[in-house]
Amino acid sequence: MSLLGDPGFLLPERRDRIDRAVAERTRTLTVVMEAFCDPQNVNAVLRTCDAFGVQEVHVVEGPMKPYDRNRKISQNADKWLDVVRWKSSAECLDALKARGFAVYATHLDDGARPLGALSFAGKVALVFGNESRGVSAEALARADARYVIPMRGFVQSLNVSVAAAVSLARAVERREAERGRHGDLAEAEADELRQRFYGLAVRQRARIAKAERAETRPASGRALRRIRHG
Amino acid sequence: MSLLGDPGFLLPERRDRIDRAVAERTRTLTVVMEAFCDPQNVNAVLRTCDAFGVQEVHVVEGPMKPYDRNRKISQNADKWLDVVRWKSSAECLDALKARGFAVYATHLDDGARPLGALSFAGKVALVFGNESRGVSAEALARADARYVIPMRGFVQSLNVSVAAAVSLARAVERREAERGRHGDLAEAEADELRQRFYGLAVRQRARIAKAERAETRPASGRALRRIRHG
Repeated sequence: MSLLGDPGFLLPERRDRIDRAVAERTRTLTVVMEAFCDPQNVNAVLRTCDAFGVQEVHVVEGPMKPYDRNRKISQNADKWLDVVRWKSSAECLDALKARGFAVYATHLDDGARPLGALSFAGKVALVFGNESRGVSAEALARADARYVIPMRGFVQSLNVSVAAAVSLARAVERREAERGRHGDLAEAEADELRQRFYGLAVRQRARIAKAERAETRPASGRALRRIRHG
Repeated sequence: MSLLGDPGFLLPERRDRIDRAVAERTRTLTVVMEAFCDPQNVNAVLRTCDAFGVQEVHVVEGPMKPYDRNRKISQNADKWLDVVRWKSSAECLDALKARGFAVYATHLDDGARPLGALSFAGKVALVFGNESRGVSAEALARADARYVIPMRGFVQSLNVSVAAAVSLARAVERREAERGRHGDLAEAEADELRQRFYGLAVRQRARIAKAERAETRPASGRALRRIRHG
């Protein structure tokens, strides 16, 4: 068996992709989702977090159905993220504040500042509230800033996954201006994450190789089914 | 009956809101959605267009189910927009190009430029392709620029409604820098739109008043039902 055929071997392109992604990762910008009703929104935000290099994402589970991963929408993004689940916003935000995060909550009131006026020079946690109820009282009590994405039309708000993406795009741009760069893992953290991602990629490769072998045998359908849903 | 109780009378706050929205409206930035599979994405993009003052939106209808308005997701945004439906992208983009629009298509290839490098000094149509197939060959052939939102992680792309929102947020920011302002309707266009919006608001007020009267009568449920779905 050649090295390339060995599922334990990681192709150089795959390794480069992982190294590039890790170089763009951060744990000094994070997102908190408060008890979203629609799992599709949770999954869309996870996909956006991966795309913008946000490694750590906090999900406060509400009284509604629990967060349910949807591969089609998240594009498996959660595999590459640290998704931390919490029973309450108070617990989640107190822990983040103890770690030095400033809490910015999307909330429309008189004291709210426009997104464009926020600083991202320090560690920031962006809080997005439930689709109908908005940000919780616990989160507002802990917020260092309340902000809005300026609305120019008739609708009162953007879809929550859209609001998260617009906020993150702005945050990344401001971080590059205010901090010089966005990705900022310490070397030890980056090493740990690279090793974890190499491992994930090797296991993914092994599953694909197994499915390909199964495809050349009389079809039981099992291995392929596992790849799609498992 | 006092003036305030007359559903034909528009409250000053409502009138101000309409005037402010019209001042932020533009027809020199537009969005083209190519045969989206998921009506939820179409509705989310409509809501975003309203929020960012984009008055004219083009929907190319595909072989899939036709665009189906969903009030919960669009928040009735399409009521305040000019939604133009097309049978093909070629027809739609040829018409826009004849009106002087530059066509920017989201498409990942070697010639693609990052979103941040695009100019929005002129009239621009942003084209978003079908969720699985991406931008069509007809659209690529007509594109003045291909662009990407830089992806820093593992997922290949953002959800299409998220990509549209990130693109529009950037476009508005660049338009303010490059053109001095975003909303730019000529006085006659603005007048026409204001009158149309006043009319829509008056009819909406009349429906609400009727529903409120129905609520104080023995419930037949009819009027209220009409408000929610009609």
